[in-house]
Amino acid sequence: MTDPARATPPDPAPMRLVRIGLQSQGEAIAIMRTDCHVCRSEGVHARTRIEIRSGGRSITARLMAVEGSFLNPHEIGLSEDAWTRLGADAGAMARVRPAPQADSMTLVRRKLYGGRLDEADFAAILRDVQAGRLSDTQIAAFLSAGAALPLDDAETTGLTRAMVAVGDRLAWTAPRVMDKHCVGGLPGNRTTPIVVAIVAASGLVIPKTSSRAITSPAGTADTMETLAPVTLDLPAIRRVVEAEGGCVVWGGAVRLSPADDAFVRIEREIDIDAEGQLVASVLSKKVAAGATDVVIDIPVGPTAKVRSPEAAAALAARLTLVGSALGLNVTCLATDGTGPVGRGIGPAPEARDVLAVLQRHPDAPADLAERAVALAARLLEIGGVAAAGDGAALAWQRLESGDAWAKFVAICEAQGGLRQPPEAAETHDVTAAHAGRVSVIDNRRLARLAKLAGAPGSLAAGLTLAVREGDRVEKGQPLFCLHADSRGEIAYALDYWSRSPAFGVAD
Amino acid sequence: MTDPARATPPDPAPMRLVRIGLQSQGEAIAIMRTDCHVCRSEGVHARTRIEIRSGGRSITARLMAVEGSFLNPHEIGLSEDAWTRLGADAGAMARVRPAPQADSMTLVRRKLYGGRLDEADFAAILRDVQAGRLSDTQIAAFLSAGAALPLDDAETTGLTRAMVAVGDRLAWTAPRVMDKHCVGGLPGNRTTPIVVAIVAASGLVIPKTSSRAITSPAGTADTMETLAPVTLDLPAIRRVVEAEGGCVVWGGAVRLSPADDAFVRIEREIDIDAEGQLVASVLSKKVAAGATDVVIDIPVGPTAKVRSPEAAAALAARLTLVGSALGLNVTCLATDGTGPVGRGIGPAPEARDVLAVLQRHPDAPADLAERAVALAARLLEIGGVAAAGDGAALAWQRLESGDAWAKFVAICEAQGGLRQPPEAAETHDVTAAHAGRVSVIDNRRLARLAKLAGAPGSLAAGLTLAVREGDRVEKGQPLFCLHADSRGEIAYALDYWSRSPAFGVAD
Repeated sequence: MTDPARATPPDPAPMRLVRIGLQSQGEAIAIMRTDCHVCRSEGVHARTRIEIRSGGRSITARLMAVEGSFLNPHEIGLSEDAWTRLGADAGAMARVRPAPQADSMTLVRRKLYGGRLDEADFAAILRDVQAGRLSDTQIAAFLSAGAALPLDDAETTGLTRAMVAVGDRLAWTAPRVMDKHCVGGLPGNRTTPIVVAIVAASGLVIPKTSSRAITSPAGTADTMETLAPVTLDLPAIRRVVEAEGGCVVWGGAVRLSPADDAFVRIEREIDIDAEGQLVASVLSKKVAAGATDVVIDIPVGPTAKVRSPEAAAALAARLTLVGSALGLNVTCLATDGTGPVGRGIGPAPEARDVLAVLQRHPDAPADLAERAVALAARLLEIGGVAAAGDGAALAWQRLESGDAWAKFVAICEAQGGLRQPPEAAETHDVTAAHAGRVSVIDNRRLARLAKLAGAPGSLAAGLTLAVREGDRVEKGQPLFCLHADSRGEIAYALDYWSRSPAFGVAD
Repeated sequence: MTDPARATPPDPAPMRLVRIGLQSQGEAIAIMRTDCHVCRSEGVHARTRIEIRSGGRSITARLMAVEGSFLNPHEIGLSEDAWTRLGADAGAMARVRPAPQADSMTLVRRKLYGGRLDEADFAAILRDVQAGRLSDTQIAAFLSAGAALPLDDAETTGLTRAMVAVGDRLAWTAPRVMDKHCVGGLPGNRTTPIVVAIVAASGLVIPKTSSRAITSPAGTADTMETLAPVTLDLPAIRRVVEAEGGCVVWGGAVRLSPADDAFVRIEREIDIDAEGQLVASVLSKKVAAGATDVVIDIPVGPTAKVRSPEAAAALAARLTLVGSALGLNVTCLATDGTGPVGRGIGPAPEARDVLAVLQRHPDAPADLAERAVALAARLLEIGGVAAAGDGAALAWQRLESGDAWAKFVAICEAQGGLRQPPEAAETHDVTAAHAGRVSVIDNRRLARLAKLAGAPGSLAAGLTLAVREGDRVEKGQPLFCLHADSRGEIAYALDYWSRSPAFGVAD
């Protein structure tokens, strides 16, 4: 008889890793044959998580079973997310066994059943999220618990601290480190490169990490990538910021808040956006980036994330309070969130708007410049380089003098070299079928139109608006121009536009 | 200009349906190439749900994208769950578009944010679950809401009524219709065929629908399938019950509570088991099956679902109260839930135990017979064919006289013909390495051992216990016998046993 106390599951022959090119949206998925040892032991009808070990690394993935000849009996197919996390080479061998239930599910259940969690509890949950040990439905349960039984201020502070603790953290020698954030994305609201240029040109330190698009036609990192490299490691970021006072880099290349991507993905699917989670997500990244002072743009409008001035005020109060508990000075600005900003939608079209503002082109979009100046003004005042009330004048001066543009060029060079945004191979003007006035623009449809043209997968793709809400147009006058890599994508976008126009022209 | 009010998304060229043999555990998954129109419009990094229409039917599935040559550009690969729901033929053409957010997510959010739901609200959610319009994470949010903010009695009653309303429903001419249920599965606790035989042999009506295994080595439907056909449609069930007074059929073949499978699957993954949901799940199926009187077996033990007599009493009170609101007379029996019942684990091994009891074999497992008689006794008393306190004697008499066996044979014949449980191609005795006493048996490990031998996928597979907890054994004496289709499966099971024995022999 063997010893009944030994609890280790069986560890059968190793299996060959196969990369199957499956994009599973952040969920690590492994596919094995229905007749493999794991599918036999767990049953192919039960949702099972497996642990895959190869080359000294280990990941947890959701198991799906496949019949027939797609895989050989001793192969295991990995989704791209699983493949990247495991970091193995094609054909490498792996050991596979059923994964134990993640320990932190006890804590998720505690919260679900009305208990409170402290920083250590949140950190345990975050580590399991980060390592893929919690499944998407388990993460959904955690997020739902925080919606049904909202985190109080102490819990929100604990969650924020935990999010900082499980990621990497930057430190700077400057006593004050500036940062900015925008809560709810409006298409084209690409103020960051302009704000960073103005603030750094004024002698303040602003090391900005930005995200790529998840469902939008462009994230700040996508737009910035058309102008300079953005995938920098921590030493490279440090060199850029020490030389130029600022940067605009992709935050995903450093691990400032590694569990947050999973949360964002699933919050979007279950369409909840609990305030405690939002506050922790925003502030943890700022603290991890080493910021001391942050200005937060809260666009308010019917299709923005925040829909009323009252909601904006409540959110601002929470952000300020929790920020203060983490030693972060937070200033919130409620801004107009009714329509798109600037003209371009998509990485390169938005980058051209940014360049036009920084290069003081006569036809640069005024709304984008004004929004960037308003945010930069507060940072200049908070940072002590402008007296209260004088920030806007100084910010305009940095723009008008060309100092902001010179600083932006220097930052791009330090990041690896300024470049021109790519031009699309194909463009197509959509014109007004009759004269009239441009109706309210639907941000959601406009974003989808730009995505059908190929943004952000193609950095050149998207659209450029030729009109704004309320403009008077004549028959045949251009409304917007589509940019795409191929005629086929133009056709996709036109087909969508013909059925679901983002705006109309009223007689 | 087209009319801006038209909201229909684009409807591009049809795509060819490809069956990919993927077992995705109840989640309908569709795989398209990263360069298809839907992946372009939605972005391959966002979790997207799509609507697939073919041959007049329509399903909603989760979209995953695949790179490279696995699919042609105009093909869409469907998981088995998606394939079955759509009911299409291989190679059929389908129209594919992004699915709108399910309307009932508004109700899920209402519950999450502290609101109450009524029967119509629950029905809307259930219809979306059933149609696959809610994703697994969205279902997890709904179930989490019910754990964090528990359903009160009125909500539980509303949910139960809604579960009945969205499914099919049986009606019987008999004034009293009996039913039974067991809350927490113990391996081998296969009382149902025996109870049905005794109760029907006593002149009562008991149309029993049972489930297949999800994570256990056998469900009642799997076990019964080794003795007679169990996949009967509603008219066939009616014919059997009208002729014989009882049946034991697979509930999945009729749609009595079609959303429940999805709930069970996800509750298991997030490891919550909210009482309101459990009560609604159990009682809705009984009401839908047309029952008027139901006896519910609540096994209580350290590895059973219910762990204390207090918890059993609270659950019994809720079941009785909500049952009463739906016109269902509920009687709960707390039973011993410490260890496995009978000898066999797996469809055919359990069926042989059932046959042994019904055929009055001298070596029939006494515990199985006693548990079945206790449940049948209450039904006989409730049904008015035995006076209070006389039910057990009558039940034993039905067994001893052979009436129950005769009735069971008649039911099997009516369902399509009595058959012998299949014998496994391979068997292997595991013997004691030394003399001693059998320790406590771990139900979970025992179940996994039977599954590694091939149960329930192979109906013949599983194991037969030769000893019980506390038995004295000599060296070399058989402990249990494995049954499998091949030597390989025997080896899998032995490997697991050698590392994780379900019990030991103490000196």
